[in-house]
Amino acid sequence: MHKTKAEIITIGDEILYGQILDSNSQWISAELDNIGVKVLRKTTIGDVESDIMQAFREAEKRADVVLITGGLGPTNDDLTKPCLAKHFDCRIEINAQALKELKAMFKSKDSPLSDLNRQQAALPVCCTPVTNLLGTAPGMWFERQGKVFVSMPGVPHEMKKMMEDTILPKIQATFQTEIIYHKLVKTVGIPEAGLAEKIASWEKSLPQHIKLAYLPSLGQVRLRLTATGEDLEQLKRDTATEVEKLQLLASKYIYGYDEDKLEEVVGHILREQQKTIATAESCTGGYLAHLITSIPGSSDYFMGGVIPYDNDRKIEVLDVERDTIIRYGAVSEETVSAMAQNVRKKFNADIGVATSGVAGPGGGTPEKPVGTVWIAYSDARETITKKLQLWQDRSINIKVSSILVLNLTRQRLLKTIEISG
Amino acid sequence: MHKTKAEIITIGDEILYGQILDSNSQWISAELDNIGVKVLRKTTIGDVESDIMQAFREAEKRADVVLITGGLGPTNDDLTKPCLAKHFDCRIEINAQALKELKAMFKSKDSPLSDLNRQQAALPVCCTPVTNLLGTAPGMWFERQGKVFVSMPGVPHEMKKMMEDTILPKIQATFQTEIIYHKLVKTVGIPEAGLAEKIASWEKSLPQHIKLAYLPSLGQVRLRLTATGEDLEQLKRDTATEVEKLQLLASKYIYGYDEDKLEEVVGHILREQQKTIATAESCTGGYLAHLITSIPGSSDYFMGGVIPYDNDRKIEVLDVERDTIIRYGAVSEETVSAMAQNVRKKFNADIGVATSGVAGPGGGTPEKPVGTVWIAYSDARETITKKLQLWQDRSINIKVSSILVLNLTRQRLLKTIEISG
Repeated sequence: MHKTKAEIITIGDEILYGQILDSNSQWISAELDNIGVKVLRKTTIGDVESDIMQAFREAEKRADVVLITGGLGPTNDDLTKPCLAKHFDCRIEINAQALKELKAMFKSKDSPLSDLNRQQAALPVCCTPVTNLLGTAPGMWFERQGKVFVSMPGVPHEMKKMMEDTILPKIQATFQTEIIYHKLVKTVGIPEAGLAEKIASWEKSLPQHIKLAYLPSLGQVRLRLTATGEDLEQLKRDTATEVEKLQLLASKYIYGYDEDKLEEVVGHILREQQKTIATAESCTGGYLAHLITSIPGSSDYFMGGVIPYDNDRKIEVLDVERDTIIRYGAVSEETVSAMAQNVRKKFNADIGVATSGVAGPGGGTPEKPVGTVWIAYSDARETITKKLQLWQDRSINIKVSSILVLNLTRQRLLKTIEISG
Repeated sequence: MHKTKAEIITIGDEILYGQILDSNSQWISAELDNIGVKVLRKTTIGDVESDIMQAFREAEKRADVVLITGGLGPTNDDLTKPCLAKHFDCRIEINAQALKELKAMFKSKDSPLSDLNRQQAALPVCCTPVTNLLGTAPGMWFERQGKVFVSMPGVPHEMKKMMEDTILPKIQATFQTEIIYHKLVKTVGIPEAGLAEKIASWEKSLPQHIKLAYLPSLGQVRLRLTATGEDLEQLKRDTATEVEKLQLLASKYIYGYDEDKLEEVVGHILREQQKTIATAESCTGGYLAHLITSIPGSSDYFMGGVIPYDNDRKIEVLDVERDTIIRYGAVSEETVSAMAQNVRKKFNADIGVATSGVAGPGGGTPEKPVGTVWIAYSDARETITKKLQLWQDRSINIKVSSILVLNLTRQRLLKTIEISG
């Protein structure tokens, strides 16, 4: 089957200057992917006629569908419409249907239709107008020799409504689209290279129609399986079979799939096991509690936390023995273990977790350099500690430590690591 | 003067499939704009050799500098390095300097250097390696006939560090860039439209060579003044004059300039006034403490915090009277006021701040809908409370509440608001 190919062209100086983030093209990509259209390329150009014309010509050579956003406003710096008229070699005239819709919109707002806004209904005569329910600039649909150009406003909610209501269904009707199925497998606690080695034999034996990609982020690596074919149910079954094999090799690192977040997964397990948790954070300074409480409904299992940032607060607020801190230091197995145990008791929770480390940039010593972090997990049966040697960067150390505490909690709740882990 | 022109090429299927948002290219654009380099075009392509090679050839024709991110991992789907070697027609070999840095990094982590990771030090012999302090893939700098190609990892913090430390200075040294001077004025506690009204007369009277842009973000609006000319010192003086005039109109909202962060400014003031602070967070769940502790050296003034997430913890850990919570509820002026006062005493701090609210999506009532948040500031002399009516979005409510607590603290420390404020 011929795979329908698309390109996205974003027009606007404000994007090239870095003043706004182009989130439109991500959204469009994901929607096209969902209907089996392959995005070959995204291009962003400024409000310059020659650049726009060149981008149109190039995209038309490569793609079946070209989706264009931006440059549709009523002001003079907006060039998309005249460029499209030139590209398709046709004149611009007031379109009766578009004018009717524009008048109705202004009437519904009790607002007069200015001359500038009236010009929004002037469109290249060779296009089919696309209704814009949420703004004044209509979309435009062009067809020539089996290729489609679509122009949409750059305002995100206007563009999305137009895509969902009209353009995506029209693309599906115009092109017979191939089926693509994605599955994300989310891992934590193993770096990309280590994971790649562990699953190398499986990766090599993947069937031709399933492709693998590694997507690393802080403390985590996502694996994306992409299956292509003609039967969605068959693709889902094939992918599930491969994921099962992957589970055998890397189960202890896999915490979830697709949209799952680690903090959400830990929350689910706590809720399922009817357990509650409390946090004692030194070096992570509240970020761990923030991750936990970013999940709606976390008050069901999160009792609260304490951030005893200086040593006296560890002693006075969290009842860590002064002697422990003097003998072993705040960044030590002994201190972090006491913090986890004490916060569990103090907050009347089933589980206590704790962090203490040198986040940096200051505070490092030869024995405990920046990036040295102790984390702990404690429940009624056991207290587990772990030493991490992280990076030179404060923000990364805070975030990675918090993620690894969540992972330690997940592993202990599911009993997937050895006590020595 | 010849204006240096750049293009940005982002490589990765995950961006074309819409699975991740390309925030890198926005950041790069803004940084290039800052040094007077004009971005002509951004292109995103997948992990396909022919597409990558074509994008390299096209960009080289149009631009002086081509910045490439992504496709540098140790796994097989990463093609940037072989494509660059092919484009510049040179072989790939282990680079001694890169290998040395890689070994040092793994040694500092007490981690063995696997064969896969060792390959990260294999680079095209025609490039100059760029040190990556935060990851394993080095950057690469190529020069040919006055044009520069730079390849960087796609992981945002690795790329940013590399750009700031090495690549931006090197671009400035290689090309003579036109003089542009930016000044950011940072405001908090007033919405964009309100600020625009307040400073309308000033905005109208700005000289021709200074342009103004409003850059809103959560709870804050940044004003960017951009001056263009030939004499940097003159541009700085002209801009300073305008900022002085702006101060007269909006001083109480302006908390800083350029790279200043609100949490950093509050830290500076605390350090200057030799005061300490402690936090009691309910609805913000640790995010406020996270903001404060994200600043290096915050242990000088941050004593710590408590997150009494459920009512019993407010009573038991933070000594809020049970009667107060029963009579007024957890989300009330009375409770938040007691939280701020008690955390101040319990943590032996000069200042206590507190939050209690309905972050959402659940928990709203007709009297206290989602977005109702009480914040409080307390020192030995006074306790100030403030009611916020925020949004429907949990994440936004958490973040905006935390920012507004920091702003309340700033205002009380500087005595810039009325007690009624």
